[in-house]
Amino acid sequence: MQTVWLDGDFRDAAAAVDAGDRGLLLGDGVFDTALVVGGTVFLGEKHVDRLVAALAVLQIPLDRSAIETAMTALAERQQTGSIRLTVTRGTGPRGLGLPPEPKPMLLGTSAPLAPALMFSPLRCAVSTVRRNETSPLSRLKALGYLDAVLALQKAKEEGADDVLFLNARGMAACSALANLFVVDGFELLTPPLKDGVLPGIIRGWIIDNAENFGLRPLEQSISSKKLDAVDGLFLTNSLRLISPATLSGKAAAADRPETVRRLMEGLCEAIGSACGTDPRDLGARLLLD
Amino acid sequence: MQTVWLDGDFRDAAAAVDAGDRGLLLGDGVFDTALVVGGTVFLGEKHVDRLVAALAVLQIPLDRSAIETAMTALAERQQTGSIRLTVTRGTGPRGLGLPPEPKPMLLGTSAPLAPALMFSPLRCAVSTVRRNETSPLSRLKALGYLDAVLALQKAKEEGADDVLFLNARGMAACSALANLFVVDGFELLTPPLKDGVLPGIIRGWIIDNAENFGLRPLEQSISSKKLDAVDGLFLTNSLRLISPATLSGKAAAADRPETVRRLMEGLCEAIGSACGTDPRDLGARLLLD
Repeated sequence: MQTVWLDGDFRDAAAAVDAGDRGLLLGDGVFDTALVVGGTVFLGEKHVDRLVAALAVLQIPLDRSAIETAMTALAERQQTGSIRLTVTRGTGPRGLGLPPEPKPMLLGTSAPLAPALMFSPLRCAVSTVRRNETSPLSRLKALGYLDAVLALQKAKEEGADDVLFLNARGMAACSALANLFVVDGFELLTPPLKDGVLPGIIRGWIIDNAENFGLRPLEQSISSKKLDAVDGLFLTNSLRLISPATLSGKAAAADRPETVRRLMEGLCEAIGSACGTDPRDLGARLLLD
Repeated sequence: MQTVWLDGDFRDAAAAVDAGDRGLLLGDGVFDTALVVGGTVFLGEKHVDRLVAALAVLQIPLDRSAIETAMTALAERQQTGSIRLTVTRGTGPRGLGLPPEPKPMLLGTSAPLAPALMFSPLRCAVSTVRRNETSPLSRLKALGYLDAVLALQKAKEEGADDVLFLNARGMAACSALANLFVVDGFELLTPPLKDGVLPGIIRGWIIDNAENFGLRPLEQSISSKKLDAVDGLFLTNSLRLISPATLSGKAAAADRPETVRRLMEGLCEAIGSACGTDPRDLGARLLLD
């Protein structure tokens, strides 16, 4: 059963939001998904920072403390699992114009851990839909996820698990579920934010820590041609952590398993150090064995 | 006060939807906005057709009759004003995957007429955000309207009323509020759907009826260079009807007022004929006088 936080307190699972909420009517809001282990959100401050920065872009006025309070309360109650915080602009008059006195809505939910998803490989198709890097939303976890929903469904019907988006200029951006990294010798490339990429929290951890594993992280545009020539691919998000990826059948991260494995082990150790329990002790398996 | 229709019946204005609705959490749904006059929705069947077609694209299973019932009930109660129907995929398990047994949510609202908006001119800025014509959503009234919300707000801060989007290839697509037409001699050009355009109901009426006013309607890509060279611009939607437009200060439809005026009069007569009352008798003014 899901835990729900709404309007500053816990609700029963049948919690409801105003039918006039602009999050529902216009996708006017943003969200965040985080991993909680033993009551501690992994890199919780970075999740809050990113959500606060997104709200500033959207001009949605909500105090950082409201976000921190919700995250802490959900983390304490859930202990180990995932937390989703959703912030909308709340209700407003008809039309697209911003309400003169916005009353933002903060909805938090948590769910049990799915350790089988952690580090599990993903077979990716390439979408015909492009990521729109001209939109500021391409760099936010905005509510409008329907492009990803539809492209992922199509990919699943074709036997894939996830779907890679190129941007309008034909550069690799991200998948429906995660950020993209490519392994190229000792270089670890990931698309820069300007290519239409969410500043993923695990993406950030890898950029900050790759050198500890003998790798050189580079934020650099990746052409679709380059994707064919690299040693391997992997995808990152806060719940799946690091997923070795194959692209349209081509073996990928498997070509450099030791590189990806070192990163996976390092991430497990960092979570263990921050949260008191290593994901491997919760059932996560590094499937490159 | 707003009238709200939810789960097949009228609710009070404080109606609420499940906090787990995918429309709220993922923008997973679509909507429609229609004009109702004297209890009759203008081109109601075309509105229902378009919504049914959009639901098919999204694989959201909802009977046409549920949409018709809601629209009829709201039209009868509102009599004259606007109706918005919102359909989402309903609730579902965590994540992007489609729920195995979807229970779509249909929300309807109505609001009084705003006759001052009808035919009122719009000063347009051009957005730096592009319309993503590679996405099927660019041709649907999907819930994710945040690009339009943000671009419109920016335009308003710069003294404009609306904002024009070019697509990724640099062709004119539409505004935040409406479809685009350009007057070029006796030709009436509007971007084709493949350029990332919603099949607007008033857009369709103009394409179907322009020849009655001595105009030749053409669905044709419009470069931003072409926009500078035409005789005039106007924008269409179901509530504002036909709005003469200026682009970044350049006078536009005013250069060919008689052409646009004939279309406005024809549309008023069509509404009068279908719904029993001409919008001019409800306070709409053709501001080209």
